[in-house]
Amino acid sequence: MIDLAQALFAPRAVALIGASGDAAKNTARPQRYLRKHGYAGRILPINPGRGEVLGEAAYPSLAAAPGEVDHAFIMVADVERALEDCGAKRVPVASIFSDGFADKGNFERQLALAKRAKSLGIRLLGPNSMGVIDARGRLALTVNAVLEMERLPAGGVSIVSQSGTMLGTVLSRGAARGLGFAKLVSVGNEADLGVGELVELLAADADTRVILLFLETIRDAARLAGAARRAHAAGKAVAAYKLGRSALGEALARSHTGALAGSDAALDAYFRDCGIVRIDLLDTLVEIGPLLIDRKPPDLGRPGRVAVVSTTGGGAATVVDRLGLRGIELASMHDLTMAATQESYRATLERLRASPDCDAVLAVVGSSAQFHPQLAVQPILQCAQAGKPVAAFMTPHAEASLALCAQHGVPAFRTPEACADALAGYLSWHSPAKRAAPSLPKHLPESPFELFAVLGVPVAPWQIAEAPGYAHDVPYPVAVKLAGVAHKTEKAGVVLNVQDRAQLDAAVKALDSQKVLIQKMETGLAEAIVGYRDDPVVGPLVLVGAGGVLSEIYRDFAVRMAPVSAEEAAAMIAEVKGFAPLRGYRNLPRGDLAALAQAVSRVSALALASGIAEAEINPLLVKSDGVVAVDALVVRKE
Amino acid sequence: MIDLAQALFAPRAVALIGASGDAAKNTARPQRYLRKHGYAGRILPINPGRGEVLGEAAYPSLAAAPGEVDHAFIMVADVERALEDCGAKRVPVASIFSDGFADKGNFERQLALAKRAKSLGIRLLGPNSMGVIDARGRLALTVNAVLEMERLPAGGVSIVSQSGTMLGTVLSRGAARGLGFAKLVSVGNEADLGVGELVELLAADADTRVILLFLETIRDAARLAGAARRAHAAGKAVAAYKLGRSALGEALARSHTGALAGSDAALDAYFRDCGIVRIDLLDTLVEIGPLLIDRKPPDLGRPGRVAVVSTTGGGAATVVDRLGLRGIELASMHDLTMAATQESYRATLERLRASPDCDAVLAVVGSSAQFHPQLAVQPILQCAQAGKPVAAFMTPHAEASLALCAQHGVPAFRTPEACADALAGYLSWHSPAKRAAPSLPKHLPESPFELFAVLGVPVAPWQIAEAPGYAHDVPYPVAVKLAGVAHKTEKAGVVLNVQDRAQLDAAVKALDSQKVLIQKMETGLAEAIVGYRDDPVVGPLVLVGAGGVLSEIYRDFAVRMAPVSAEEAAAMIAEVKGFAPLRGYRNLPRGDLAALAQAVSRVSALALASGIAEAEINPLLVKSDGVVAVDALVVRKE
Repeated sequence: MIDLAQALFAPRAVALIGASGDAAKNTARPQRYLRKHGYAGRILPINPGRGEVLGEAAYPSLAAAPGEVDHAFIMVADVERALEDCGAKRVPVASIFSDGFADKGNFERQLALAKRAKSLGIRLLGPNSMGVIDARGRLALTVNAVLEMERLPAGGVSIVSQSGTMLGTVLSRGAARGLGFAKLVSVGNEADLGVGELVELLAADADTRVILLFLETIRDAARLAGAARRAHAAGKAVAAYKLGRSALGEALARSHTGALAGSDAALDAYFRDCGIVRIDLLDTLVEIGPLLIDRKPPDLGRPGRVAVVSTTGGGAATVVDRLGLRGIELASMHDLTMAATQESYRATLERLRASPDCDAVLAVVGSSAQFHPQLAVQPILQCAQAGKPVAAFMTPHAEASLALCAQHGVPAFRTPEACADALAGYLSWHSPAKRAAPSLPKHLPESPFELFAVLGVPVAPWQIAEAPGYAHDVPYPVAVKLAGVAHKTEKAGVVLNVQDRAQLDAAVKALDSQKVLIQKMETGLAEAIVGYRDDPVVGPLVLVGAGGVLSEIYRDFAVRMAPVSAEEAAAMIAEVKGFAPLRGYRNLPRGDLAALAQAVSRVSALALASGIAEAEINPLLVKSDGVVAVDALVVRKE
Repeated sequence: MIDLAQALFAPRAVALIGASGDAAKNTARPQRYLRKHGYAGRILPINPGRGEVLGEAAYPSLAAAPGEVDHAFIMVADVERALEDCGAKRVPVASIFSDGFADKGNFERQLALAKRAKSLGIRLLGPNSMGVIDARGRLALTVNAVLEMERLPAGGVSIVSQSGTMLGTVLSRGAARGLGFAKLVSVGNEADLGVGELVELLAADADTRVILLFLETIRDAARLAGAARRAHAAGKAVAAYKLGRSALGEALARSHTGALAGSDAALDAYFRDCGIVRIDLLDTLVEIGPLLIDRKPPDLGRPGRVAVVSTTGGGAATVVDRLGLRGIELASMHDLTMAATQESYRATLERLRASPDCDAVLAVVGSSAQFHPQLAVQPILQCAQAGKPVAAFMTPHAEASLALCAQHGVPAFRTPEACADALAGYLSWHSPAKRAAPSLPKHLPESPFELFAVLGVPVAPWQIAEAPGYAHDVPYPVAVKLAGVAHKTEKAGVVLNVQDRAQLDAAVKALDSQKVLIQKMETGLAEAIVGYRDDPVVGPLVLVGAGGVLSEIYRDFAVRMAPVSAEEAAAMIAEVKGFAPLRGYRNLPRGDLAALAQAVSRVSALALASGIAEAEINPLLVKSDGVVAVDALVVRKE
């Protein structure tokens, strides 16, 4: 039997269910585009009202169509009926352009469709998908109007997009630049085939060398993470543009797709964990391909360094300024203004490429890129493209120079910002995280303090004391708390700094409870917050931040997928600005950040537990030697 | 006599000192470009070795050239000699392409040149200038290779640039998009004519409707501020792209231009103060013209709101996401996917334009922009362009649609990021600040505490106490400080919480000083820092931030040009995230932010004083009623 990838990307016969005979209609497009771009298989328009469609034989029903059909493209409103027809005809893959499912809030209709498809043995793309394109195979099975283009350029970059129109945007802009593509897939609502499974297919696809993602949300985080690891193992980079950087964008992505979008920091942690390069600008998605093709993550344990060769100081500065904002350093600047010969220019590039002082080389080309493209970019084209990248930014309008670079596989950029975004993405690119998970005790107690103590986090000594005597042997001063109250800055139910028995009696009276928690008062140099969350979108996360209201206001946290080693936790702690005092800022006394890292790692081990939705120590006091938890919270899954 | 603007932009005769007969040389370009683009005045190549240059009569010296010369373009190494020749010939303006002055660290050579030019009555552009272009006047007096372009498109946008090549970049990219220009000036080192004076000329220039700036630094902040106000009064927007967003970029701009670059926050305050729109991306500088032409600052006292009409949800989201990052709100989203007729599309745009619910309308156009430009943008072109802007973003490669928009004066953008940057710049655009300056007492005491008290800021009661008795009548508890020690977190020389006479004696002994400052211990809800600085680049600034180490780490300050009214100070305070607790975050007790605003306004009045370089209250304690300064510092100018 034909396999999934073949049926999806290289079907021998395609049925177009609902193909229109009116060439101006959207539903006529797949047939027109398949013909226009030279699809070699059989095309079977299905239209109950006509014997021919656009000059080709048409069939009143799928059942009436001759021979086997590998792939059906469904454009009719009665998707369920069309699916049954596919089942009867034993069609292995159906792409559904029709909408009115999760995209319109009709989740049950979509679930029922997916369930029925599964029982019929049919794999679904969509619904609400614009279809699939394979440039080498000349398959343009799509309603996307970008296929009006004269030629479909073939290359090594494949794209999976949750937005059909933005798939067209990347194809359109890339093609205009001479950048070619392998396979392009609009996933629509992902009722069955999701981004993760498609990345699996592309990781195994011989024509695909780089995988780009246009994402509005993530619906199958675990599968995508596994697929990204497979792509990495196959030497293929994965890069993602993800909507929802701002709260506004996040809300929009949610309403647009009917999906739950994750918070941006959680997504950063997720992409980093699975070795996906996150890019920030739309142009970068179009232009980054040649920078990533056949390259591995540099896995730098320090800020990246770029050497710049320029014939225009102002032009170079526009890129360098942006690189600085992303924490990338300038290794060296070589101003060849008005003095460069082609040979000296090329020699400078090659010398820098071979130098251990930089991780990438950038050539910034001025007006010659516009009027003498061959001369201007020749030295750059002559640089070897294996190993350390040599990229180009053209300051003027310079289509011919950009096309030359594309033709020779040289990464080249139209704006200083996309250039810096791509280089920063490349230089911050890490291999998928490997984890030697901390071990987890078998029995996890119910009470938060006991739980964290069992995990190995020091907890301030405490006891439960009960009426009438409220006996305890915690040494004074103590804090007296209502047992089971979640911590909040504005918390009631806590009396601090209780110095002796008399004050304890007063405190207990004030709290008016039969049962209180009595805990030793601890002091530290600073407060930290350590949190764990099993995120509904991306999975288990661990967070560390400076404690107190201000760090909450400044959103000064580091987040990673859990679990993390103590070493990784130390890297997280280094990212938190609010810990600067503990690192000795302004000669303030240093805190035991190694103990904090241990605690973060131990809390992160909750990822191995089931049943815990959230857990938090807030504050965890950081002392000059050691840390101690003085308040904690655990939320279990229902 | 010919005036400056005429000699600079519309000279009747131009002398090219050092014109080369080798057409391939840079120094042959001005003559070639003047001819190519149709300059109608007299061109006088000056070359001691030849009687003709590029087929035209040449002269061995300026003295030998016939008739009056309005503008000399100097390309020889011996600039000083050429300047003397200009003086003898009574040339009113000289543009100097030659470098080797401040650009190479030779500041004295440049000062001497400027001084001599002044005594000769010659105005200088440069040195290290690429020259000047007037599109309507067909004057291409420049070595910039961008003038190899076939036609110089005329329009209402003028540019002043500190980078000659980036001037070419904007011209090149704009021309390729059908965007025309009025006057373009490369200012070089600004030995005489600076950005400010050029903006004055352009504010008075009939052809100029928008003024764009490409800046590496600011050398004449006060003059530019005045010029920007004149431009505002003349109904002309000024927009600036300024390098140095990152510390790396700032360092680079400094080394590249030999100038002192200002800190980015200070520059933001400066641009805001003089009503200059600051833009973030290079593409925005190219594309923003039509959005600003004939528009006034919206002066919104709240976040801007954009209504979006789209045929592609994913495409709209790419812009909206960016707008959200800049604090711009989505007024409404109108998805016309696959259902819009031209008429209903236009009607929707016009209805939104007329609605009070939004401040700008954005049309996001999908693939039709590429293949059916006339149809796709027709409804947008038909919208009135006066009043509230209707802008367009095209998702695909859509040169023809962009050109149509340019032709009709419709603001249109090639990337979602530049589109959002331009809209955010426009919606955050304020008229130049008007100030009813707080009054300043005539006598300003030397001591910091006395100074701030005289300004009207409450100061914790204090006295100077001397050996042997250290008598005082400040009520206990008090702080005991060495007089005249600058405050620092790691300060020595301070004993806090001195409760009684015995503790005072011990404190004085520990401080080991004949003279101490004794001050009442005050407590507040939170600490603030209020600072004043006469910035060497932009002038007097006032700053307010949350106090303590964390706000320093997070750089959580609001900065404005000083002085500010209490109302403006309140707006600054609202920008400081760290004051959230004082605003009642998490039900924390509210602080007297009105008193804080008063204090900020009063400190800002130091802008009216001379002789004060810096002044700072840190901390200023914010209480539930009132504020009180407990430590202060004043740095006087030398």
